[in-house]
Amino acid sequence: MAIETSMAEVAIEQNLERFLLVLSVSLSVATLPQIVSWFRRIPYTLLLVIVGLALAIADVRLINLSPGLILFIFLPPLLFEAAWNLKWSNLKRDLVPIILFAVFGVVISTVGITLGLNQLAGVPIAIAALIGASLAATDPVSVTALFRELGVAKRLSVLMEGESLFNDGMAVVVFSFLVGLSLGESQLGLSPILVEFFVVVGLGLGMGLLIGFGISYLTQRFDLPLVEQSLTLVSAYGCYIITEQLGGSGVIGVVVTGLVLGNFGSRIGMNPRTRIIVTEFWEFIAFFVNSIMFLLIGDQILFRSLLENLPTIAITIGLMILTRAIAIYGLTFFANRTVQSEIPISDQTILWWGGLRGSVSIALALSVPAALAGRDELIATVFGVVLFTLLVQGLTIQPLLKTLKLLGDQPVRQEYSELVARRAALERVLQHLTQMKERPEVEADFYNLQKVLVKGELQNLESELDTLMNEHPNLREFTAEQLRSELMAIEANTYAEFVRSGRLNEELAPSLQLVFNEHKEG
Amino acid sequence: MAIETSMAEVAIEQNLERFLLVLSVSLSVATLPQIVSWFRRIPYTLLLVIVGLALAIADVRLINLSPGLILFIFLPPLLFEAAWNLKWSNLKRDLVPIILFAVFGVVISTVGITLGLNQLAGVPIAIAALIGASLAATDPVSVTALFRELGVAKRLSVLMEGESLFNDGMAVVVFSFLVGLSLGESQLGLSPILVEFFVVVGLGLGMGLLIGFGISYLTQRFDLPLVEQSLTLVSAYGCYIITEQLGGSGVIGVVVTGLVLGNFGSRIGMNPRTRIIVTEFWEFIAFFVNSIMFLLIGDQILFRSLLENLPTIAITIGLMILTRAIAIYGLTFFANRTVQSEIPISDQTILWWGGLRGSVSIALALSVPAALAGRDELIATVFGVVLFTLLVQGLTIQPLLKTLKLLGDQPVRQEYSELVARRAALERVLQHLTQMKERPEVEADFYNLQKVLVKGELQNLESELDTLMNEHPNLREFTAEQLRSELMAIEANTYAEFVRSGRLNEELAPSLQLVFNEHKEG
Repeated sequence: MAIETSMAEVAIEQNLERFLLVLSVSLSVATLPQIVSWFRRIPYTLLLVIVGLALAIADVRLINLSPGLILFIFLPPLLFEAAWNLKWSNLKRDLVPIILFAVFGVVISTVGITLGLNQLAGVPIAIAALIGASLAATDPVSVTALFRELGVAKRLSVLMEGESLFNDGMAVVVFSFLVGLSLGESQLGLSPILVEFFVVVGLGLGMGLLIGFGISYLTQRFDLPLVEQSLTLVSAYGCYIITEQLGGSGVIGVVVTGLVLGNFGSRIGMNPRTRIIVTEFWEFIAFFVNSIMFLLIGDQILFRSLLENLPTIAITIGLMILTRAIAIYGLTFFANRTVQSEIPISDQTILWWGGLRGSVSIALALSVPAALAGRDELIATVFGVVLFTLLVQGLTIQPLLKTLKLLGDQPVRQEYSELVARRAALERVLQHLTQMKERPEVEADFYNLQKVLVKGELQNLESELDTLMNEHPNLREFTAEQLRSELMAIEANTYAEFVRSGRLNEELAPSLQLVFNEHKEG
Repeated sequence: MAIETSMAEVAIEQNLERFLLVLSVSLSVATLPQIVSWFRRIPYTLLLVIVGLALAIADVRLINLSPGLILFIFLPPLLFEAAWNLKWSNLKRDLVPIILFAVFGVVISTVGITLGLNQLAGVPIAIAALIGASLAATDPVSVTALFRELGVAKRLSVLMEGESLFNDGMAVVVFSFLVGLSLGESQLGLSPILVEFFVVVGLGLGMGLLIGFGISYLTQRFDLPLVEQSLTLVSAYGCYIITEQLGGSGVIGVVVTGLVLGNFGSRIGMNPRTRIIVTEFWEFIAFFVNSIMFLLIGDQILFRSLLENLPTIAITIGLMILTRAIAIYGLTFFANRTVQSEIPISDQTILWWGGLRGSVSIALALSVPAALAGRDELIATVFGVVLFTLLVQGLTIQPLLKTLKLLGDQPVRQEYSELVARRAALERVLQHLTQMKERPEVEADFYNLQKVLVKGELQNLESELDTLMNEHPNLREFTAEQLRSELMAIEANTYAEFVRSGRLNEELAPSLQLVFNEHKEG
């Protein structure tokens, strides 16, 4: 097609081509475990990093990963998706340790790495501090992706995800304060840091709540699935950009919006089908963005500068592991005095070793002004440490979980839950078929055929369930737990029905819903 | 957050902001019919054009719509989605008329408009020919969007969509040949045109088949829903870009890929659940892109240049309507000798009047080299004609369908569904009234009165339903279908309930959902 294209169009086309190429490579990586089963041991995201590294060794550079790309395009959807799927009731239970990790963990890591690098490796204090701040926050994307693939216990992944979703605000504040300081724009002192911290975090929280609840009440007024789906996308990017422009933490904004929409808005404003479609849509977006990002992280590595800075990198790794140990074991000591059930030492060990660094650290390092002396050293160090956490820590966390017996009987429970859900669904179908008035317009044979089919299926399910219960006697405890939550669900549904039918004031619903959601999941 | 951003990042951020703004305006337009029911008469896409026009009148320009943006970003997913949902068996039945319209319809329109404009309006032959070629092809996007919203009979929409999906190849060939001619690069003659036509169309067909079947067999080898979903996205954009680079018609390439994947690949390579998710995903993408594009088409209008070229526009509109009449009625005369069941005259009339022009015409007009004298006149004319087809033809097609009695039993089905819903609601009310404990604060008489009222209402409904069923015996098929989907909905909702209440793990649910989706389609 011989249509003349302008420069801008050529640029659009080339960018699109690049992304398609990256995506194609990633998708090929995704099919590797299907071809060679050995690869199944390695989580998909880490496999991408390794393939990216291999491409970098062969000097195949797919695309240049700018901090703008990471921050504006990739981060909002990933954060939104993680928050959308995080249950508020779970998060609330461990809010104290999560806040402690997110706030003081960052301070401990930054101070520890800064002083250590300065004393042990002779790195200038300004650069050391920026390295410390870049690496202070665990990465929500890497951590979430990895923990989901491994299927660890709920509480552990909530602790890990919760911390990583909220510590960015703190890290970004510390980091940008330090950048200002090293360029001579900020003043050293505790009160300006504190003021900035509260402004940045407060704006993030405020905008997140505003947009989250705003969209929630908006979607309650109509039932337009495609519009509601689009609104989740608009709110993720919109909240990030608006919060950033106001000077707040876009990361915290998106996380709060995602939490509100996933836990509240999707319940009051979306019908069940829409909710499932939106969840599936975000699952795809997260897969899509992760596929691109982890490959590019590997592909960005410059081996020469990694080798040049190897001693600094090694020392930083040691400091990072040490400071995280102090932060996790130390802060948990205090947190365990407040929470209902203590965080056991095995969980603490996973929290310590599983604190991967990723895209946020890289974006922060790349965003250091070019004017700053020592920028290249800083970037190389941060990349090196991130690579270590992804490859060494990421690949050893599964054996560690197994050693600590933390993988649990999750698969069996899952199988059991699925069978029970299927039985309930089919029973309800049968009930409906039996109770409904026969419609003159449908042939009687059709009813009978359906009934026979459903009954046969139900018998199969019963026998499968029997087998499962005999093989795993400790499922009984689990089923008792399930029954309790079923009863709670009946209670909660009654409230919901009262609200729906107008017998309960709708405006008061939020506070109520918070109350009964707690019940429901308790 | 005080991180320094480079120029490129600022550009990314600004583009993103613009798109979010456009999308927010579009989504607001989508909710208009919920607030003011009058707007329900106007199809969503046309409502967007009108709002875009209103913004243009107020001189609010949201974004600049470059042909590159239309061609590379918007067109491939829209074409892919339309083709993915087009059933090959339906298409095959009417392949002869579709090919006749797509090939000779374009030639008739181009020649007719060119000669007419040159003779009647004195437009130079080169410009007249480019206007003719730009407007020769009906727009797949506008036509598909409109016909779907109106819910016309299957065959009519297949004819319309089929023609519009395939005539672009022809229009683009004619257009680029004419551009070359007016710049003195091509030679006038039938054989070079024919050779180019076969190269362009052949490459499109070839690449489309290659990529379509390649991906189909690839996805057959594994069951990775997210990868398969990504592959549909890669194939849509990839096929377009590769075909264009080889000099073929990217439009035809994408359409063929979409047809192959939707009719063949999705059946042999995807499990039912993946197929549903992918279809829903593309439905969302189409909604998303349409929401942006139709608003921007309206918003792009420059009224001053429209007014200046009003006589030319009016003559072009007349010519376009006339040549399409000749093409449709004339070609159908021949086509009716080959197809099993003839295309009735009423269908022909809809094909004639429903031939909207849209994004493809605009993209072609905008792609005319700036060096060509008369470019502004050309662009203004094409925009004016497109606007006429969208607003005048688009808004009158529904009354026309009604007059020609072509809306089928859609209204009857609607009436039936409403009656059934009302009956179910009243039955539930009656059940509730009967079962509930009498509340001391309400008089017993009130209960009885309510029961009598509801019962009377139910009897009315029953007799209305009877009458409807007797008048339209073919509703039986529809009701069986309805019952089946009702049963499926109960099953699906039960799963959703389990997931919501935490009794079933959302992340592992896919394997379960697979089972019940199979049921659904069995």
